[in-house]
Amino acid sequence: MTTSFGPSYVRAIAPYVAGKPISEVAREFGLDEARIVKLASNENPLGMPESAKTAMAQAASELGRYPDANAFELKAALSAHYDVPADWITLGNGSNDILELAAHAFVEKDQSIVYSQYSFAVYALATQGLGARAIVVPAVKYGHDLDAMLAAITDDTRLVFVANPNNPTGTFIDGPTIEAFLSKVPRHVAVVLDEAYTEYLSADKRYDSIAWVRRYPKLLVSRTFSKAFGLAGLRVGFAIAQPELTDLMNRLRQPFNVNTLAQAAAIAALSDKPFLQKSAELNAQGYRRLTEAYDKLGLEYVPSDGNFVLVRVGDDDSAGNRVNLELLKQGVIVRPVGSYGLPQWLRVTIGLPEENEAFIAALEKTLATA
Amino acid sequence: MTTSFGPSYVRAIAPYVAGKPISEVAREFGLDEARIVKLASNENPLGMPESAKTAMAQAASELGRYPDANAFELKAALSAHYDVPADWITLGNGSNDILELAAHAFVEKDQSIVYSQYSFAVYALATQGLGARAIVVPAVKYGHDLDAMLAAITDDTRLVFVANPNNPTGTFIDGPTIEAFLSKVPRHVAVVLDEAYTEYLSADKRYDSIAWVRRYPKLLVSRTFSKAFGLAGLRVGFAIAQPELTDLMNRLRQPFNVNTLAQAAAIAALSDKPFLQKSAELNAQGYRRLTEAYDKLGLEYVPSDGNFVLVRVGDDDSAGNRVNLELLKQGVIVRPVGSYGLPQWLRVTIGLPEENEAFIAALEKTLATA
Repeated sequence: MTTSFGPSYVRAIAPYVAGKPISEVAREFGLDEARIVKLASNENPLGMPESAKTAMAQAASELGRYPDANAFELKAALSAHYDVPADWITLGNGSNDILELAAHAFVEKDQSIVYSQYSFAVYALATQGLGARAIVVPAVKYGHDLDAMLAAITDDTRLVFVANPNNPTGTFIDGPTIEAFLSKVPRHVAVVLDEAYTEYLSADKRYDSIAWVRRYPKLLVSRTFSKAFGLAGLRVGFAIAQPELTDLMNRLRQPFNVNTLAQAAAIAALSDKPFLQKSAELNAQGYRRLTEAYDKLGLEYVPSDGNFVLVRVGDDDSAGNRVNLELLKQGVIVRPVGSYGLPQWLRVTIGLPEENEAFIAALEKTLATA
Repeated sequence: MTTSFGPSYVRAIAPYVAGKPISEVAREFGLDEARIVKLASNENPLGMPESAKTAMAQAASELGRYPDANAFELKAALSAHYDVPADWITLGNGSNDILELAAHAFVEKDQSIVYSQYSFAVYALATQGLGARAIVVPAVKYGHDLDAMLAAITDDTRLVFVANPNNPTGTFIDGPTIEAFLSKVPRHVAVVLDEAYTEYLSADKRYDSIAWVRRYPKLLVSRTFSKAFGLAGLRVGFAIAQPELTDLMNRLRQPFNVNTLAQAAAIAALSDKPFLQKSAELNAQGYRRLTEAYDKLGLEYVPSDGNFVLVRVGDDDSAGNRVNLELLKQGVIVRPVGSYGLPQWLRVTIGLPEENEAFIAALEKTLATA
């Protein structure tokens, strides 16, 4: 076997490791699927909203046909909802697709991309997949150091990824700080503001990033239907940016990247305010419960504005994997984050009340016997 | 607006133009959607098989969860069906995703990709998206000239795309000719054999490309569930190749590229032999009807082994678009192929008997008044 086939930068990539699916854990550990609690992938524990199920069922009659490549109806709904022209919108097969498209459309080999330490794994993967140079800026308190990121921009930088709230740490940057940063980014650099978790922000923390898109032609706001909207299994995300960026992405976008059912379900979920509100309330309640338990156990955690909490489960670098394995044996799936350089930590999605209790009980048991 | 942002090779791309969706034609021409006949995108006119609908309904309960990134069950089904190890399989969001992944994983900027004139548009798009060099080999009788393609390979070539049957022309290369070609391709070059329409081949034309994958470590066979299997709206395709190629693609593949419902539906469709057989029979019958009509009208067509026929509707370079517009006004959507360098031709998908009749009637009327 030739070992040198393919670009060297592709061969150097370590593939993304997804959260273990319930079926896989059941197989591996001989557990009953129905008993397994999955808090590993920051999904909405309420699942898909009923409104989206109804819309999906109505759209299911024409699945022998290709999806609408231009997603006329979904773009119209997003355009009305966010008050931007439809041609400022790019749809993706989840926001993962948006992040990859942006990198591919804005950056070429040997140019650079700036992102923060401890930020979403796809930023590194998208950079590596292009043979581009990663400029990884040290985090401050597990979050973005925007001043240092600004200072790290070089002549060959074409893209900065900013996640707010950030995954996997949950850290948040307030609106005025982001806008001050945007006003200082040089004109040869695009900014992708990844707001996958923005629907979970409390009212006092919200800010209007779409207004910034109108002012900054090099800003792209990335959103997803996979988190608060509850459609992770269907795959749909979107970007809002002015035509300069949108046109570039559309040249690379696979025309049928968003399937028919995802388009229909997203339209329904977008306007389902009661579902979003219930999701946010459930999340806030779960956040209080998890952090209360961490306090009681004397565990350090990173204050989070997402639907998950990063918690430090030990002092040694095998702590995350060790505790994770014990949790798996008890049928609780969370996310070890050693690949993020956080081997002492676990990222735990906020679940339904009973799921949170199951996790807390399993964690207490694990730590008591450690 | 800065017009020079983004890689020059991305800025040079003309985005893919998909077949017009029924809803769009209804809006544009003020027609009733129910009356419109769409023969534009080589979909299965029978739609999605019932077996797949049932499987999809059963999988619909967990759509708040991410799909299984490793698609354990679908890969197991494909592995059993095609008798290859599961780790020889790469899943894609349609075979479009497979074609893009292959190019991205095997080729870098300024290396070259060989494909035929009049072959599938995505080969050119994937090449341009990388800033790679396209070596487009002149077609013979609207089909691949494999000897010339072999001769066109250079030291910097890393990939050859071969479509069999070819879209949009429908041409077919017999098995022994392809195998002779594979045996001569240099070891520094991968071959993607795109068999999107292979399920439509008559028994006498079938060949065993999976056996070639076992013998040739640089061969990738690409298949789709969007054509004969009837799942275009769900988005799922797959590649079979030895680990050398599969491992490279997996480093770039978006982990959740195939949605939950597509995975479930594909498993069911894969083993639905009666549906495939009915689809192939309906197609053969429709092919006879369309070509009979072309003969009667004195129109040249390219003999096709796919589920579509390329037909020459006039002698001047505006013929394709002109006839297409007249057909659209009568509620019949077909595909003009001027972007393929075939401005005198239309590609017409073989539909249900009544759809074929509607197209033929509209075509006759158009040509009579021309």
